Amino acid sequence: MNSNWLVMLTPVGAVFALTFALLMMRRVLKAPQGSEKMISISQKICKGANAYLRRQYRIVAIFFAAMFLLLLALALGSKGKIITTFVPFAFITGGFFSGLSGFVGMKIATAANARTAQAASQSLNGGLRVAFSAGSVMGFTVVGLGLLDLSVWYFLLKYGFEKPAEEITSAMLTFGMGASSMALFARVGGGIFTKAADVGADLVGKVEAGIPEDDPRNPAVIADNVGDNVGDVAGMGADLYESYVGSVISAMALGVSAAHAVGDAVSGEQAVTVPLAMAGIGVIASILGSLLVRTKEQASQKSLLSALRRGTNFSALLIALAAFPLVWSMLGKEHVGVYFAVLSGLAAGVAVGFFTEYFTSDTYKPTQRLAGTTKTGAATVIIGGISLGMLSTLAPAVIIGASVLVSFFVSGGEGNPALGLYGVAISAVGMLSTLGITLATDAYGPVADNAGGIAEMAGLPKEVRERTDALDSLGNTTAATGKGFAIGSAALTALALIVAYTDRVKELAPDVVLDLRLTNPVVLIGLLLGAMLPFLFAALTMKAVGRAAQSIVNEVRRQFREITGLMEGRAEADYAACVDLCARASLREMLLPSAVALLAPVASGFLLGPSGVVGLLAGALVSGFLLAVMMANAGGAWDNAKKYVEAGNHGGKGSENHKAAVAGDTVGDPFKDTSGPSINILIKLLSMVSIVFAGVVLALHLPL
Amino acid sequence: MNSNWLVMLTPVGAVFALTFALLMMRRVLKAPQGSEKMISISQKICKGANAYLRRQYRIVAIFFAAMFLLLLALALGSKGKIITTFVPFAFITGGFFSGLSGFVGMKIATAANARTAQAASQSLNGGLRVAFSAGSVMGFTVVGLGLLDLSVWYFLLKYGFEKPAEEITSAMLTFGMGASSMALFARVGGGIFTKAADVGADLVGKVEAGIPEDDPRNPAVIADNVGDNVGDVAGMGADLYESYVGSVISAMALGVSAAHAVGDAVSGEQAVTVPLAMAGIGVIASILGSLLVRTKEQASQKSLLSALRRGTNFSALLIALAAFPLVWSMLGKEHVGVYFAVLSGLAAGVAVGFFTEYFTSDTYKPTQRLAGTTKTGAATVIIGGISLGMLSTLAPAVIIGASVLVSFFVSGGEGNPALGLYGVAISAVGMLSTLGITLATDAYGPVADNAGGIAEMAGLPKEVRERTDALDSLGNTTAATGKGFAIGSAALTALALIVAYTDRVKELAPDVVLDLRLTNPVVLIGLLLGAMLPFLFAALTMKAVGRAAQSIVNEVRRQFREITGLMEGRAEADYAACVDLCARASLREMLLPSAVALLAPVASGFLLGPSGVVGLLAGALVSGFLLAVMMANAGGAWDNAKKYVEAGNHGGKGSENHKAAVAGDTVGDPFKDTSGPSINILIKLLSMVSIVFAGVVLALHLPL
Repeated sequence: MNSNWLVMLTPVGAVFALTFALLMMRRVLKAPQGSEKMISISQKICKGANAYLRRQYRIVAIFFAAMFLLLLALALGSKGKIITTFVPFAFITGGFFSGLSGFVGMKIATAANARTAQAASQSLNGGLRVAFSAGSVMGFTVVGLGLLDLSVWYFLLKYGFEKPAEEITSAMLTFGMGASSMALFARVGGGIFTKAADVGADLVGKVEAGIPEDDPRNPAVIADNVGDNVGDVAGMGADLYESYVGSVISAMALGVSAAHAVGDAVSGEQAVTVPLAMAGIGVIASILGSLLVRTKEQASQKSLLSALRRGTNFSALLIALAAFPLVWSMLGKEHVGVYFAVLSGLAAGVAVGFFTEYFTSDTYKPTQRLAGTTKTGAATVIIGGISLGMLSTLAPAVIIGASVLVSFFVSGGEGNPALGLYGVAISAVGMLSTLGITLATDAYGPVADNAGGIAEMAGLPKEVRERTDALDSLGNTTAATGKGFAIGSAALTALALIVAYTDRVKELAPDVVLDLRLTNPVVLIGLLLGAMLPFLFAALTMKAVGRAAQSIVNEVRRQFREITGLMEGRAEADYAACVDLCARASLREMLLPSAVALLAPVASGFLLGPSGVVGLLAGALVSGFLLAVMMANAGGAWDNAKKYVEAGNHGGKGSENHKAAVAGDTVGDPFKDTSGPSINILIKLLSMVSIVFAGVVLALHLPL
Repeated sequence: MNSNWLVMLTPVGAVFALTFALLMMRRVLKAPQGSEKMISISQKICKGANAYLRRQYRIVAIFFAAMFLLLLALALGSKGKIITTFVPFAFITGGFFSGLSGFVGMKIATAANARTAQAASQSLNGGLRVAFSAGSVMGFTVVGLGLLDLSVWYFLLKYGFEKPAEEITSAMLTFGMGASSMALFARVGGGIFTKAADVGADLVGKVEAGIPEDDPRNPAVIADNVGDNVGDVAGMGADLYESYVGSVISAMALGVSAAHAVGDAVSGEQAVTVPLAMAGIGVIASILGSLLVRTKEQASQKSLLSALRRGTNFSALLIALAAFPLVWSMLGKEHVGVYFAVLSGLAAGVAVGFFTEYFTSDTYKPTQRLAGTTKTGAATVIIGGISLGMLSTLAPAVIIGASVLVSFFVSGGEGNPALGLYGVAISAVGMLSTLGITLATDAYGPVADNAGGIAEMAGLPKEVRERTDALDSLGNTTAATGKGFAIGSAALTALALIVAYTDRVKELAPDVVLDLRLTNPVVLIGLLLGAMLPFLFAALTMKAVGRAAQSIVNEVRRQFREITGLMEGRAEADYAACVDLCARASLREMLLPSAVALLAPVASGFLLGPSGVVGLLAGALVSGFLLAVMMANAGGAWDNAKKYVEAGNHGGKGSENHKAAVAGDTVGDPFKDTSGPSINILIKLLSMVSIVFAGVVLALHLPL
């Protein structure tokens, strides 16, 4: 049975998603912007974010241009043997669309912040509508652009140039590498910006000068709000674009080996297109789910949460139902087991999300107990948070392990490992198929956060801030679920990419026998060095935040000292100077960690050869996964433990306990918003770089 | 050329080491004990330590008895097929001698503390002599008992029962498992005790009541000093006994496979005995080195350090010289490359030690900069310390990786992997061959620490405390080097044990083909779960410290409240109650983490089969190594950054900066003295448990 037409679901899904994003954008822009003061603040934030992104893109453009030339030289020099001439172009487009996803998200977020504050001054539900619509713009832009790019490349290579499947997926993996590189820059640069501004503003403003958060007298307050947009929005957009296309592309690549293994041309080719079609279905299910997110005019926070949950659960259910006929018709009933891999991926995403919430939400024991450790000071809060984070790696590791095992065996891995590994890759696609809506519920958090800042700075009534806080805190919970999906899918995708790397090596050098056994010392050394990389990377990014924050601290102190009348509210702070400083510092600091991520796999390839690279990738995968979970969950728990104390527990705001809780939260900031999420990208980028440069490494490595 | 007689170096070394330990003990006991008050305090500490160890041994005895019966039943039930009848007895003796090493160390340390204080009241050099002699007793007892036990088992099995090499090493691996189990209990239980008492005493005494450290009014002060003995001394003794015999045994086991691979019976058998002979030489070299550790009467701290360095460097040089003829005569000139594996191990130990010192000593930039972060509060100190710890994993990972690579290839691994892996195991033996003296320089630190406590409590003149502090701070530096050796050798030994596990599986089930490739999902899942174990283990031990410390805090508060006249010095605190509470809490808290370590490899074996177990062991090895380095170095740096501030930098004692530094040190306490060092044992114990229970797992695992 030929069901080739099902791949059309991809461009159709792209069009649907982008149209839906456009409709949502119009809805956001229709909402009133509020008072002149609110508009002026919002414009300042927007201007700062624009200025930062412009600079970031300028630096990144140099990198992409250089890489483009390098890849082009390689392609032309090797006459397409090491890489084809499509590769440099694929690389560029991946970077471009990843950056565009972040840019659109940032644009809509800065357009929506004042509007959300204004709508929240009417009602909680109004605020939710505007903020969630803005989140939806970002969510559906990401998946829409992802599917668009995927379909254009697929159709171009398949029907335009009539290339074989190997060459198609190999070019598309480079496109993934472009997206991952851009995502890494955006996450690391934005993450350093946002946390440097946050920490810097808090250390001088809250701690030294004793003025409240988001007080307009604080010169770093605009930078702090800009940071939310360039880090939490633009960074996250680029990041999830990368995750999304990465999971689809890696599944397509393993589809090629599965096709070879099965030896059945028809179902073989379908194996490559199933991930594309699945992503298309996911978009449609997400749109339908989003339409369900609405509440009564006077909604409680709880009913808001259940509205969001209803939307995501409905989408997941739709996918679970639609995937069955899809798999059946595309792969035939002998491979229908792959459907259960999809289910296993969906279930694992939900389960990891649940445990993330369990460990980080103050409605559960772990975070409540963490709040209790504030009674004995900052040190016990830190010990408590770190051990909570470490403990929280147990469940995700077991869940992902179980999901890999299930996906492998239900897809027929026992008889045919290539099929089983394909199933594992498909489970990542299943996990991310609801990304449109999960990202929408995730991305609306920073919008609500910004709205709260504007409400504070513009002096709106207290209940407006309370409402935006309610939205923001809801955002923390949904963000936890979103992080679960991001981390879980990163692990599965990275695993698939490791397999794709070995396939690529086999393709390039059929006579090279890779000894990938753990008893091979080269593999073990690779494993050790790879496991070290996320530690190194986390250290570099945290140090970068510290240094950048220090420069903000000095600048804010200078302004307090030199601008007369600032503390009395008679003079305005030089916000732009802080924004500018943050931008320069974060862009400078972003280079070293990014260079490590890009150079490590190539350098270790030269030294240890391809077996060592596989060890490196596997080591980075496992330690990166655990470190990312630990850092994200410790950070989330500290944040919510602080909020729990602020809600009046253990002494409440201003108490010694609260100070201890603030120390925990400050440590958690770079954990959860800079280092943790960047590691997700790191582990995939390492694999993609290895794949793209496999030919070079094979030609030049030392003879181990 | 038959050079079988060289194995006699082992019993000779044992006799030398134990005799030397005895001489040193007599020297310690000859020193005057000081005033009646000092004697009384020392006795209280000794009584507390005895009481704790008695209880610990009682609990541990139950465990050993149960394991003995289980192993005996297995041996008899399987008619020696799964394990031989030697195994249960080997297991018991390993545990017994490991415990004995710790016990002797504790005995001499509690006998030496008042004597060191008394000697320090005369001169710095006098203090050093007594403390270093006490450290030597422990160092040479550990290596002496290790060699004794190794030779007894080897000669008994080889010449008494005339068993083949496989059976000898297999029984001796169980002996290693016994030693590791005991070491884990001692490290975890002692580590929880010492840090719970330390943190508990500080939180109420220093922070709440505002009395100085080691003030006799603090009810937890004796418990704190007991903790130094049961954790830092008895725990470390058991731990290093385990490392020492573990490295020798694993090298012997790989010697068996190397012998098979070479196929030359003579040099084959010698391969098994080289590690034994090498350890014997190491002891003699260490004794000669120790004799060099002496200074002029009026020595500066710097000259003390160079005296210690002179001793260790001299020992290392002797070994480097003596190992060459040893390897040449035992293995023949075609395998003389193994000698370079010894050198590579020695060099790697020194290099890792140097980087440990670089990252944790306040004479270098990293710790000085960390001290500078105190200016912006506790949170920045924590971020700084954690990123320092993470960054410090780079060098050890590269060094160990390079050492593995070098050892593998110089030993002929390219032509014959079994030989190369044997070389890697030998490099661990080389690294630990100077253990006698490095442990002596390491173990004298806690003695000096205790002496300082006694000087404070007995109200000795200020300069005495200053001298003991100088000795203590010197001890911190040498301890850093010692930790480098401990961690580095743990990684190499664990690697060798993984290979020994695969050999064991092959031996038990020759027809089972292990798919150890990293593309096997079962291996990857094992890898992920294994990498998670050190995180889980660290979380459990840190949480245990937190809970135990909390109960001390409550008890100290109770005594301050209920004992009238305590704060005015009219009534004595109930020290015994605190000691008792610490003992009960730490023994209770020790069970769960230990159970995880013992059950995880067997449980995962049942679920994932032997390939999954290898993945688990490799995952635990790499993530455990990195986590142990990170935690040890972050903890060491925080400790020394606090000392650096106390020395008058960045505001000095009592400033806000100092408070921030104290918070860092408190977080570092469980990092460096509980969780970090236990992970070293964990990664080896996992392998040994897997080896001993390999037969059971092979018989019962699920069909993956």
